[in-house]
Amino acid sequence: MPTKRRLANAIRALSMDAVQAANSGHPGMPMGMADAAVALYADHLKHDPSDPHWPDRDRFVLSAGHGSMLAYSLLHLSGYAHPTMQEIKDFRQLKSPCAGHPENFLLDGVETTTGPLGQGLATAVGMAIAERHLNAIYGDELVDHHTYVIAGDGCLMEGVNHEAAGLAGHLQLGRLIVLWDDNEITIDGPTDLSRTEDVLARHEAMGWSTHECDGMSADAVSRAIAEAKKTRKPSLIRCKTTIGYGAPTKQGTAATHGAPLGPEEIERARAELGWDAEPFVIPDDVREAWSAIGQRARGEKKAWEERLASHSKGQQFKDQLDGKFDRRWQGQLIEKLVANPEKMATRKASEIVLEAINTAVPATIGGSADLTGSNNTKAGGIEPLTAANYAGRYVYYGIREFGMAAAMNGMALHGGVLPYGGTFLVFADYSRPAIRLGALMGAKVIHVMTHDSIGLGEDGPTHQPIEHLQSLRAMPGLTVYRPCDAVETAEAWGDALAGEGPALLALSRQGLPQLRREKSEHNLTARGAYRLKSADKERRVILIATGSEVHLAMEVAERLENDGVGADVVSMPSWEKFRAQDAAYQQDILPDADPSEILRVSIEAGTTFGWSDMTMKNGLNIGIDRFGASAPAPDLFEKFGFTPEAIIPQITERLHND
Amino acid sequence: MPTKRRLANAIRALSMDAVQAANSGHPGMPMGMADAAVALYADHLKHDPSDPHWPDRDRFVLSAGHGSMLAYSLLHLSGYAHPTMQEIKDFRQLKSPCAGHPENFLLDGVETTTGPLGQGLATAVGMAIAERHLNAIYGDELVDHHTYVIAGDGCLMEGVNHEAAGLAGHLQLGRLIVLWDDNEITIDGPTDLSRTEDVLARHEAMGWSTHECDGMSADAVSRAIAEAKKTRKPSLIRCKTTIGYGAPTKQGTAATHGAPLGPEEIERARAELGWDAEPFVIPDDVREAWSAIGQRARGEKKAWEERLASHSKGQQFKDQLDGKFDRRWQGQLIEKLVANPEKMATRKASEIVLEAINTAVPATIGGSADLTGSNNTKAGGIEPLTAANYAGRYVYYGIREFGMAAAMNGMALHGGVLPYGGTFLVFADYSRPAIRLGALMGAKVIHVMTHDSIGLGEDGPTHQPIEHLQSLRAMPGLTVYRPCDAVETAEAWGDALAGEGPALLALSRQGLPQLRREKSEHNLTARGAYRLKSADKERRVILIATGSEVHLAMEVAERLENDGVGADVVSMPSWEKFRAQDAAYQQDILPDADPSEILRVSIEAGTTFGWSDMTMKNGLNIGIDRFGASAPAPDLFEKFGFTPEAIIPQITERLHND
Repeated sequence: MPTKRRLANAIRALSMDAVQAANSGHPGMPMGMADAAVALYADHLKHDPSDPHWPDRDRFVLSAGHGSMLAYSLLHLSGYAHPTMQEIKDFRQLKSPCAGHPENFLLDGVETTTGPLGQGLATAVGMAIAERHLNAIYGDELVDHHTYVIAGDGCLMEGVNHEAAGLAGHLQLGRLIVLWDDNEITIDGPTDLSRTEDVLARHEAMGWSTHECDGMSADAVSRAIAEAKKTRKPSLIRCKTTIGYGAPTKQGTAATHGAPLGPEEIERARAELGWDAEPFVIPDDVREAWSAIGQRARGEKKAWEERLASHSKGQQFKDQLDGKFDRRWQGQLIEKLVANPEKMATRKASEIVLEAINTAVPATIGGSADLTGSNNTKAGGIEPLTAANYAGRYVYYGIREFGMAAAMNGMALHGGVLPYGGTFLVFADYSRPAIRLGALMGAKVIHVMTHDSIGLGEDGPTHQPIEHLQSLRAMPGLTVYRPCDAVETAEAWGDALAGEGPALLALSRQGLPQLRREKSEHNLTARGAYRLKSADKERRVILIATGSEVHLAMEVAERLENDGVGADVVSMPSWEKFRAQDAAYQQDILPDADPSEILRVSIEAGTTFGWSDMTMKNGLNIGIDRFGASAPAPDLFEKFGFTPEAIIPQITERLHND
Repeated sequence: MPTKRRLANAIRALSMDAVQAANSGHPGMPMGMADAAVALYADHLKHDPSDPHWPDRDRFVLSAGHGSMLAYSLLHLSGYAHPTMQEIKDFRQLKSPCAGHPENFLLDGVETTTGPLGQGLATAVGMAIAERHLNAIYGDELVDHHTYVIAGDGCLMEGVNHEAAGLAGHLQLGRLIVLWDDNEITIDGPTDLSRTEDVLARHEAMGWSTHECDGMSADAVSRAIAEAKKTRKPSLIRCKTTIGYGAPTKQGTAATHGAPLGPEEIERARAELGWDAEPFVIPDDVREAWSAIGQRARGEKKAWEERLASHSKGQQFKDQLDGKFDRRWQGQLIEKLVANPEKMATRKASEIVLEAINTAVPATIGGSADLTGSNNTKAGGIEPLTAANYAGRYVYYGIREFGMAAAMNGMALHGGVLPYGGTFLVFADYSRPAIRLGALMGAKVIHVMTHDSIGLGEDGPTHQPIEHLQSLRAMPGLTVYRPCDAVETAEAWGDALAGEGPALLALSRQGLPQLRREKSEHNLTARGAYRLKSADKERRVILIATGSEVHLAMEVAERLENDGVGADVVSMPSWEKFRAQDAAYQQDILPDADPSEILRVSIEAGTTFGWSDMTMKNGLNIGIDRFGASAPAPDLFEKFGFTPEAIIPQITERLHND
């Protein structure tokens, strides 16, 4: 039997060799944390490399994602189908799934994409919430696992750490165990260049259990993990390590962090570590021992499968994991809305929709970053999810937008739950890094963003989104919806639930008339844009509007028609969905035509930036290209020119000039 | 003499009456913290309402910006010219500077715009850094003041609090004193809905001094402030308060947080508080006492002015505060660059520029969020700014992008220093809320954002900006520069330093050929876009490119010319600056013409979103509308079609079809 140190040295060798081959990467962290990783895999982690999606596996998150070679080494050595040794040799090349940072969509066993510091841990908090929630519903027989995290100093310094740690402590997520790679080094040099903090005391203050150990001893780390498992609090284990351990002249310094060690240093490291195998060769004894480690939990998995097969809630559990739910709520609700049209804010409409969804779809877990009453996110009688009642389905996230968004990503990645969470649209800036990471991963999360324009009124420019809609539409992988009334809100929710990746709903604070008054055969919002009103007179204008400006566009159109100018009104709740339609549909809605024949006019109470994508260069863009102001909403719409009186002369002038 | 409680009740009355008149706003916080505010103003705050810009005044930041009526009451009562009583009556109306949240550009005495939670405190950290830095240079005679903050639970829960508190503790900012409004209430209800934390212990763990007092007793708060002033650490004072104090049925509950109390409750509050004056009437005794409070520091100010007049560095101090500096570095440097063209990354060029700037401009304070060697931000021999050496001019901000950006805002607002700080462009998402607040305030801060495209290579999609350039260009008030070579980099820095508001430089990781090889009479980058190359053959194409894609555009143009197709190349380092040019200039660079006559083509290694603003609907946009990948940069540029071979056929096809 090889020693644990020898098993760790296999990680060290793979890491330094792969980084050297790529001439790019981060050897220091994998070499420093190799022993700790052996402790976790050899003695604790419950997983089955032959079934990476086993629902009751422990989750392992490498929050310090730059140390990706640690993850790739562990997956390879413990017997996952990928990465193969060739793929490790091709580390950081296009043809390999071994990307610079671990990508969950490239490799099974990578539970979440990491790299942007702090987010791995914050995402893991969501996984741990999902675990406790499902455990509360399905019991220990089906759900009973841990979430392990390796985090570096960067993960602990980022602001999101405070939000994540605060949430985890508050919810007493005892199944969350974080190994802190305390190597006293950041990129700029020793940690004391920028930090003077008792990290353990800070976590204790937030309700964590803390532990310390020699991170270079697998046995010591293993004992610390065993201790941590006993507490009912989330645990932070301080692993004292040496970055780049084994590299004789560079270890313990920032030089090992983000650059290849160089052939000479690597050769000397081999001698230092007593590792005489060639690069990318794993000696048989090591291969066998690692293989045995990988198979450690097979029996457990088999027993779990047997329990599942005979469990009274087994089928329900499987359905919930598969994301199956009853979709009939949508048609029923829209029928009701159409029958009784009402003026209401789309945030209020969203609440009505959520009443239906939360009743029909038990997998939803809602929440808000301390704006529950404003975001209208608590609906359908769902109870708070608390340390005393994990079966609850509503999280009071506190004033933690970023932590909320990251936790939602983690819940979605864990599976079995469908998270949505609210804040003001302007604070999408706070949660943006997690919105992006979710978009990259395709995590099915719904961001409920209310107060979506100057229409929020008196709170003023700090609270009024201007550039947010466009800056979110510019983000790949995210679908933004801005519904114009209650029916579009129901359609947007329905389409978001039916979709694969993350969605964001931009909802009004202020009341909006219901424009959709007939049952439609299709979900029109799912098409991104559609003709809400066709020109009566000869069509000279197409008014394209979203959300709270659609009713204004209708009013403008009516007046234009009265003046003999035919005008279509196109409601465009989602740019992304419209762009995904076929060319024929797009041409039907927005026909190519010279502006002198048909003028396209966009109306949105936000920046005009990018709107010529829709209106052509010589189109007319009505928007707000400055920050907002503090006043009642009607005064602001007037000030910023969102009235028929302000808009119509601009259209008329353009028509006469062209 | 009225009691301090009576002075506080004036604040309570103004706050509840103004919110009621506006039928909108937040009475709870001002009513809860009124006594603490009296303590601060009556016994400690050094300021002169008749000279709000006195450089050595104490700074007071209302981080819990929703409690804006507290700030407005204090400014009015202590004798600032604004707000007048009429302006307070018009709270939250267009005509009043009393906006929903305090805006530093609307009222003297509001040191920073607040509202987005956590940022006021994080901004104050920057003010406290600037104070200690200037003190180290100019001594106690000229610079010797405190920075006071009132923060609520939201400010302490937001992630940026961790970054700000960590930085303040590390730098031992003993002049920073934070009053925590511990009212145990957030919008959603009691704080224990979402937080289980020993807030004081957390701050102690980060190097803070902590204090506790009865926040409803001005004398108790005053004593606590006096204690806090004695320590060499930043101080957090826990003020136990009752939100909405005085409102008999609503105090102590979330109901007072963000809504008018209602006429009946207000009437009963008047009785409870013993306040019988009519709304918006301040009794003479109270008016006189507050007026005396406002004049408390007049003598100090006069003595300070005398010291300044006779100080050996007096003129230098005034020049530094006025932002005067020697601008000759720019011409000299560009001359050198033009004489010896070199291929280099624009981040490296930025370092060379900073060598010159940091030598010529003593007001700069640089830094990086732990990417010093990658951002190339430490140049010109500047020393670290540390607790032991506040005279240093380089801040190791640690892995705290948001905290860095907020602190830079605070430094700029404090005055006398010119902050710049670096991170990767993709992490503009982390600092975005502070970039936006700085843009709203017009704070002169320079964000140095390197690794600005897939050109960073192997780190992969989490590190590759795609939507960032456009999402930042969409933000009002921010000027984004993306220079194509060393000369444009020098021009961009020069223009940013000459400008008023915040700027962001997007810089390449990879080497770029120097395209500008002749001295130009003007700063061409300051025009936003200019013709780098004119068509030789008949002009059929205008290639518009930025940054690292300009040399590609030059290559494409050359090949087109060889094929008989005349092509301009327009380098567009700044959209914002180009849009600020007059119509004639814009027409000259981008003449209106049918695409069949002149095709506009944009080339930028980022999203095409919004680029039709520049190229017209039927233009051609070369970009990346998905997330990136991990591989060496040349492989990525090829994969994503950034080669002449991939681009030219698209142009040719379009020319033939039109």
